Amino acid sequence: MPDTGQTDLAKAMTAAAAMVEQRLDELLSPALRAQEQARPARLLAAMRHAALAGGKRIRPFLLIETAGLFGVAPQRALQAGVALEMVHCYSLVHDDLPAMDDDDMRRGRPTVHRAFDEATAILAGDALLTLAFDVMADAATDADADIRIKLVAALAQAAGPGGMAGGQALDLAAETAAEPLDSAAIRQLQAMKTGALLAFAVTGGAILGRASPAQHAALARYGAALGAAFQIADDILDATGNAENLGKKAGKDAARNKATLVARYGLASARAMCQQQVEAALAALQQGGFGRDAARLASLASYVASRET
Amino acid sequence: MPDTGQTDLAKAMTAAAAMVEQRLDELLSPALRAQEQARPARLLAAMRHAALAGGKRIRPFLLIETAGLFGVAPQRALQAGVALEMVHCYSLVHDDLPAMDDDDMRRGRPTVHRAFDEATAILAGDALLTLAFDVMADAATDADADIRIKLVAALAQAAGPGGMAGGQALDLAAETAAEPLDSAAIRQLQAMKTGALLAFAVTGGAILGRASPAQHAALARYGAALGAAFQIADDILDATGNAENLGKKAGKDAARNKATLVARYGLASARAMCQQQVEAALAALQQGGFGRDAARLASLASYVASRET
Repeated sequence: MPDTGQTDLAKAMTAAAAMVEQRLDELLSPALRAQEQARPARLLAAMRHAALAGGKRIRPFLLIETAGLFGVAPQRALQAGVALEMVHCYSLVHDDLPAMDDDDMRRGRPTVHRAFDEATAILAGDALLTLAFDVMADAATDADADIRIKLVAALAQAAGPGGMAGGQALDLAAETAAEPLDSAAIRQLQAMKTGALLAFAVTGGAILGRASPAQHAALARYGAALGAAFQIADDILDATGNAENLGKKAGKDAARNKATLVARYGLASARAMCQQQVEAALAALQQGGFGRDAARLASLASYVASRET
Repeated sequence: MPDTGQTDLAKAMTAAAAMVEQRLDELLSPALRAQEQARPARLLAAMRHAALAGGKRIRPFLLIETAGLFGVAPQRALQAGVALEMVHCYSLVHDDLPAMDDDDMRRGRPTVHRAFDEATAILAGDALLTLAFDVMADAATDADADIRIKLVAALAQAAGPGGMAGGQALDLAAETAAEPLDSAAIRQLQAMKTGALLAFAVTGGAILGRASPAQHAALARYGAALGAAFQIADDILDATGNAENLGKKAGKDAARNKATLVARYGLASARAMCQQQVEAALAALQQGGFGRDAARLASLASYVASRET
């Protein structure tokens, strides 16, 4: 990938992240609507702690970029992207809980249950998840209710028991499993836990953009491959990175006996698998016939595989 | 209220509860759709433990009955009712967690975190909440996407940080507050924690039934009053009931210094306030001009105030 592509990508990601941060800040205000009860201050503070911690905002960026293939302006795709980001943030809050991964730090700051308390963290996660559907259902997402309901359904399916929540359940089960998971089981776990929401970022953009069935299918393949590459890269980072870069503890996967391809097959094989997924992502974009319009999505596939944080 | 009214009500509630149980059983199967990943067995078992514990199913009953005022058949309103019930069930699972109310028993059975484990209980709650929006967004709820998106938005608002999740946060804060809450603060807490979802049961039925704005407003007042009566009756039951009837420990509110009108004003005043809310509910039905069609909803208002479990 030429440097110009990565520079353009970095600029576009920074711009999108700033938009996301601002819209999240607006949506996480004391009360959105006149008829609503005010959100309790401590709960709202915990939701803001969870959602306004910065970060690359890869998921809304993907959604905005994919919708952009079809001429949807970033500001118009932002609402759906922010709903998606809220679901991602809720999942981090709950994954960090003592009963789950028991993490004290996230992005260089105390996790929500450390900065507040466990009950507040559970509720803040619940509230972010619920608010995500409120935000997605809002007319600001799209004027057409049919598009909005498709987005709600697709997001719920990506995040639900057959998606992210199910993947987290498989991940916890794997920690105490008698036998290590085989490659197929690890891939399925990762496709659910991380892949489903990343794939929704892409197919959500396709829904907003009124993609044709063939375009939607190509983008779904891109999203699935990108999600797989992202997760393998994450596992590689955990095995090789340092806490300072990550903003969280490295080496936790091995310590907790997490089911990862790195643990199962070693670093070299994991890197090769990651590269295969990047190539599959690029091939899907070609099959979709998006040409130069998809240059940023192509750069992003290389980026997620080689990122250092 | 004449006995015939209460007998008819009891029959209708039993019939609705059976429909709800059956539909929940169908929706909580290993996989709903061909393209979805299978739901992990232990997670699904925990979701089923939470959702298929029987119970009166008052919320879906209210939704079905309200939609019925406008000629919507019970089988057609069932899907929205089941989505609502899933949100209610998720809230019980999370409220029972050690970090929240720390309850071991619910409806005479171990709570989800006791029957399974804490991580699974958190995830099962998350998954039920997420699935609720998937179910509500489904075409089986209503053929019109505009109606479905209104239901999604209203449910999210009722359950979110300005509704149920916010009410639970206020409830936890009240336990450790230096000063006892005053009547207005207790009412606001209860309107959010319990009232919002009960009110949605009624307004959700009005949305499904394409109620006029005036009818919708009257039903919203009925729902708010019913919810208040329900919560005060619950607090009275906790103060006077026994564990056998309740299927959970009685006297927990006082032990945990919960903010209730019973604790603040005594039993006699609480009973009077409960009766006032029943009368407000009946007045709202009259103002809506529903006549004899609303006989069951009227009976229900008396029932929730005088129930013994």
